[in-house]
Amino acid sequence: MTLPYLTPLDADTQRAHGIAAPWPLAIADRVRFSELDPLNHVNNAAYLSWFEGIRIHYFRDWDISHYRPGDPRLVIRRAEVDYLREMRLDEDYILTARTVSFRTTSFTMEYALWAGDLRATGAAVVVMLAPDGSGKMPLPDALRQRFEQVDGARAA
Amino acid sequence: MTLPYLTPLDADTQRAHGIAAPWPLAIADRVRFSELDPLNHVNNAAYLSWFEGIRIHYFRDWDISHYRPGDPRLVIRRAEVDYLREMRLDEDYILTARTVSFRTTSFTMEYALWAGDLRATGAAVVVMLAPDGSGKMPLPDALRQRFEQVDGARAA
Amino acid sequence: MTLPYLTPLDADTQRAHGIAAPWPLAIADRVRFSELDPLNHVNNAAYLSWFEGIRIHYFRDWDISHYRPGDPRLVIRRAEVDYLREMRLDEDYILTARTVSFRTTSFTMEYALWAGDLRATGAAVVVMLAPDGSGKMPLPDALRQRFEQVDGARAA
Amino acid sequence: MTLPYLTPLDADTQRAHGIAAPWPLAIADRVRFSELDPLNHVNNAAYLSWFEGIRIHYFRDWDISHYRPGDPRLVIRRAEVDYLREMRLDEDYILTARTVSFRTTSFTMEYALWAGDLRATGAAVVVMLAPDGSGKMPLPDALRQRFEQVDGARAA
Repeated sequence: MTLPYLTPLDADTQRAHGIAAPWPLAIADRVRFSELDPLNHVNNAAYLSWFEGIRIHYFRDWDISHYRPGDPRLVIRRAEVDYLREMRLDEDYILTARTVSFRTTSFTMEYALWAGDLRATGAAVVVMLAPDGSGKMPLPDALRQRFEQVDGARAA
Repeated sequence: MTLPYLTPLDADTQRAHGIAAPWPLAIADRVRFSELDPLNHVNNAAYLSWFEGIRIHYFRDWDISHYRPGDPRLVIRRAEVDYLREMRLDEDYILTARTVSFRTTSFTMEYALWAGDLRATGAAVVVMLAPDGSGKMPLPDALRQRFEQVDGARAA
Repeated sequence: MTLPYLTPLDADTQRAHGIAAPWPLAIADRVRFSELDPLNHVNNAAYLSWFEGIRIHYFRDWDISHYRPGDPRLVIRRAEVDYLREMRLDEDYILTARTVSFRTTSFTMEYALWAGDLRATGAAVVVMLAPDGSGKMPLPDALRQRFEQVDGARAA
Repeated sequence: MTLPYLTPLDADTQRAHGIAAPWPLAIADRVRFSELDPLNHVNNAAYLSWFEGIRIHYFRDWDISHYRPGDPRLVIRRAEVDYLREMRLDEDYILTARTVSFRTTSFTMEYALWAGDLRATGAAVVVMLAPDGSGKMPLPDALRQRFEQVDGARAA
């Protein structure tokens, strides 16, 4: 079965690639040489860049920020990664993202990395700031609803 | 006061730069342009590379691995970062590392990033494997003792 | 028209995306956030990683090296990049590669980066070494023929 | 002899470390793990980041740009690297930079990388743009004079 890269995967395609419970956002990609380290596997820091990549895609699709002037500024307060099995050059993978909980001005996202089996999981606490970074900004109601209805997230 | 870069800092030098309770390993460095992202601050993934850098220095100084053939293979099972205040171009910083606990074949390290104030903290769970990666390897007794005596770590 | 990512593009697909004279290898991809710098465009060093990525793909497809034990070791002796127009987040691009000339133990590759128009060109001089890196290794005859017949390269 | 890191080196210190003809700017640093690739040496793209790092230091010291609002925007039109001998983990090196020629709105810099012997050389063509990137900007007279008097550069 062909895997379409760099494009959101629907629930059926996710299931067909081993993700039994589909996520609201899933993107396929392939390991690059520049992500490898001397142990000849993907370096541990590259996973944070992968999570960041799908997070920015998510921010755009969920209308959180398009990184235009006047958009809220999103900062990461905390990041976690659990490395389950190493990734090698040219392996295809699917990255998935969702928001699991939210507060007044912040939300917690989860990430997972799949390549046949589950290779890594991660989480990030994201804080929404005013566009000029001057202070925290409450999450808009429409976003809170989207978190609940699309992601199944819960107010914390 | 002059800050010597890329060289382990003794306890007095750490105290003179605001680290009230010195760590067993502390290294000074400076933010590079290549570590910045479009938000004009250090990218969140760069912190994992910083922690990795001091971890490898620590592995060598604590005689855990010199990344020579026949040395144990060390893999990261989990990584965490708490981002407290952003880092900017050309800021001097001190990175500190220590082991806080250990088990039969793994240990947990903590990291901190200081630039006047505390900017970030982190942790990593490190697993020791046989040189060929075939399986887990018990921590040598000398290393367990060093963890306890030098780092103040505790068997978990 | 849909652009298939991370997969060699045939001549017609290249032409349909503005590459009037198709190259022997062309791969589509998209700009990632981690490739941007504080000027909010792709950092100049990222282009070398892109050229490296397609070069390794080319090494494999042209049977030059699969980065397995016993394969020749390829090292870069020289790299050049001409930056024609900056690249922005999420832009789709096509990277193309070919060998233009070769000597006894080395060859010169060219690269181009297309996103509607031509955004950058590059070149690399690649030297073939013995698998253990001990010395230079003559290019196999089959490779010289492939360079001439597929890439239109010339012995220098 | 001790090598002071991350700080401009005077002519005598450069000579003491094997740079017979000192450059107007020289900075010492050490290879990091994150700069290595699966061949266990510094990746070819990392050299461009090193050249960029000293270039930005040079821009500041030569009062070309401090990357503040209202400063000219500097873009790279062309980059070249000659790789002479590979760099390994933890090697100390000295990076040197100078401008060798200039035109109305652009200048050509050279770089060299020293670690006992000469490991790499490089060049970059830098174009000066208006702060908003709207068009090319003539080099100020004071800068042209500095290029001539401090760097020994020539109008091209």
